[in-house]
Amino acid sequence: MLDLSNPSLAASRPAGAASPVVAIVGATGAVGVELLKCLEARGFPLGALRLLASARSAGRTLPFRGRDIVIEELTEASFAGVDLALFSAGSGISKRYAPIAVAAGAVVVDNSSAFRMDPAVPLVVPEVNGAALAQHRGILANPNCVAAIATVALAPLHRAHPIRRLSLATYQAASGAGAAAMEELRASTAAYLRGEPYAPTVLPHPYAFNLFSHNADIDPASGYNGEELKVVAETRRILDAPGLPIGITCVRVPVLRAHAMAINIEFDAVVTPEEARERLAAAPGLRLVDDRSANHFPMPSEASGRDEVLVGRIRTDIGDPSGRTLALFVVGDQLLKGAALNAVQIAEALRA
Amino acid sequence: MLDLSNPSLAASRPAGAASPVVAIVGATGAVGVELLKCLEARGFPLGALRLLASARSAGRTLPFRGRDIVIEELTEASFAGVDLALFSAGSGISKRYAPIAVAAGAVVVDNSSAFRMDPAVPLVVPEVNGAALAQHRGILANPNCVAAIATVALAPLHRAHPIRRLSLATYQAASGAGAAAMEELRASTAAYLRGEPYAPTVLPHPYAFNLFSHNADIDPASGYNGEELKVVAETRRILDAPGLPIGITCVRVPVLRAHAMAINIEFDAVVTPEEARERLAAAPGLRLVDDRSANHFPMPSEASGRDEVLVGRIRTDIGDPSGRTLALFVVGDQLLKGAALNAVQIAEALRA
Repeated sequence: MLDLSNPSLAASRPAGAASPVVAIVGATGAVGVELLKCLEARGFPLGALRLLASARSAGRTLPFRGRDIVIEELTEASFAGVDLALFSAGSGISKRYAPIAVAAGAVVVDNSSAFRMDPAVPLVVPEVNGAALAQHRGILANPNCVAAIATVALAPLHRAHPIRRLSLATYQAASGAGAAAMEELRASTAAYLRGEPYAPTVLPHPYAFNLFSHNADIDPASGYNGEELKVVAETRRILDAPGLPIGITCVRVPVLRAHAMAINIEFDAVVTPEEARERLAAAPGLRLVDDRSANHFPMPSEASGRDEVLVGRIRTDIGDPSGRTLALFVVGDQLLKGAALNAVQIAEALRA
Repeated sequence: MLDLSNPSLAASRPAGAASPVVAIVGATGAVGVELLKCLEARGFPLGALRLLASARSAGRTLPFRGRDIVIEELTEASFAGVDLALFSAGSGISKRYAPIAVAAGAVVVDNSSAFRMDPAVPLVVPEVNGAALAQHRGILANPNCVAAIATVALAPLHRAHPIRRLSLATYQAASGAGAAAMEELRASTAAYLRGEPYAPTVLPHPYAFNLFSHNADIDPASGYNGEELKVVAETRRILDAPGLPIGITCVRVPVLRAHAMAINIEFDAVVTPEEARERLAAAPGLRLVDDRSANHFPMPSEASGRDEVLVGRIRTDIGDPSGRTLALFVVGDQLLKGAALNAVQIAEALRA
């Protein structure tokens, strides 16, 4: 049985080594479905694939590489023989079952927030801090979707010129709240267009042609919501910039599956838009969409279903008289780079 | 005939003076329709009401106070006997016909950008800089919708503590691009939900469950678009803060008629959220929506059709270590405070 849990073994294992037994925990969720698609599209080597979910979903099947795979109920015995477990079933499930999976010999890549701030657990965006992978002791954390997408665009600049201060305003898609929220956006919008009332059940506010401050609970001391505080803490960790001042407003917009963000980046010195454009164009995982004459910049409609994070509207922030702040607009697929794709990229990097 | 064009006369005229003859130029547009509704809802005194539009619309009728008013074609002769002309038919029409209306004895309140930066034309949000009204020489400019909505929330703070720097990210509704854009949002979304293709004709990008950088042309030198540069210039003028550094990203979101904005405000000294909340709660034209425990903050669904600008998410910006920056979230009806209502409020203030 392939053992990915030992980093020194993983590092020395040649490409094309024995294919691991992979389990997906939360296979029926919005991210779970994308994990399956990513594994299939990228030809991830699989000794076997096991789909784990709640008792409610057990017995159903999901298609994979032309076959139907039966979903099994997640139990404490589920991880026998599993080499790699991709968790995407919420923080509570991860806290309970990830240690069990590790004890059974699996490496866990966890998409929840359960372990992201645990100093013993690497929080990884492979293009940004792939070196942190080697530190793992069985669990690796997949970042918050905004942090993952933002850091892909921030890292190439931060490496060249340390970032001194960040400000973000987000435009976050329904998918971040799961498949049911995406369906609520579709159904409530259809009802609105028919002139019919619709009572939201997944999100706390009407969603049809509406937007609202992110629905995570507010920290009474700071007035920031949980999503914003996650992005701040995780962005600092991924960029290895402890204490970096980050201001952020997280807003849920009526978009299905790609997150957008307006980012203002203050540096210690002037960084020209031309230099930033060159660095971003050359960076992995990014695609420059910055056509001023055609008014063509990153959009959710072009980022959805796409691996790359789109970056554009690169300009010197006219709101900072020092000229040391750049503004840019970044859009990435929340389910891909913001979740499933990054998790699979972590798994690929472990095998590389 | 009532002469509102002489400010000293206007200032001395008692309430309940003879009712003016009012013309609406661009009566069939999204803002034109709201102008009619505002005049009706607010009981604006009218000697007569004339609806002016292009030859294409002439002969149609629009309902007003239970009657049908026939739309007349706009010509150079249209303004004979008109005391007050509310223009909302684009910059070109305003540039051509507003001087003709003034020469015919009318006061013009212009909703286009034609005269907003003309030093001889007051640019007015009555709650903010109503004193500027008295300077007019026949034309008054109604601000850009983002500038009008933002300054209602900024002025009560700026008056108490001079603002030193501003940063905005907007979430702008379809209505800012007119009634046809609102219809394109509805129709393209309906097509999307049916799984059918839709070719946009009004806006340059797909709009269903999508967002994009504001479609105004980009200034090649700065990389800012025309909408952003308008907001910067007009906000400075309305707040009487020449040279105030303002950074901004304007984004069109799939919302029908209310603009939202995340605003970060740097002051010369610390301003606490508690103080800001008190000042904003007491300010005219604003409504505080800032319930952290219920996660209830300003939303387009609650601002649409409403006169007040909603403000909330008031907190100290954790991205500024000096503690001198406040963050807040502001939403206002683009067609009301962002356009028609503010124009009618200017007309009311002229009569007061």
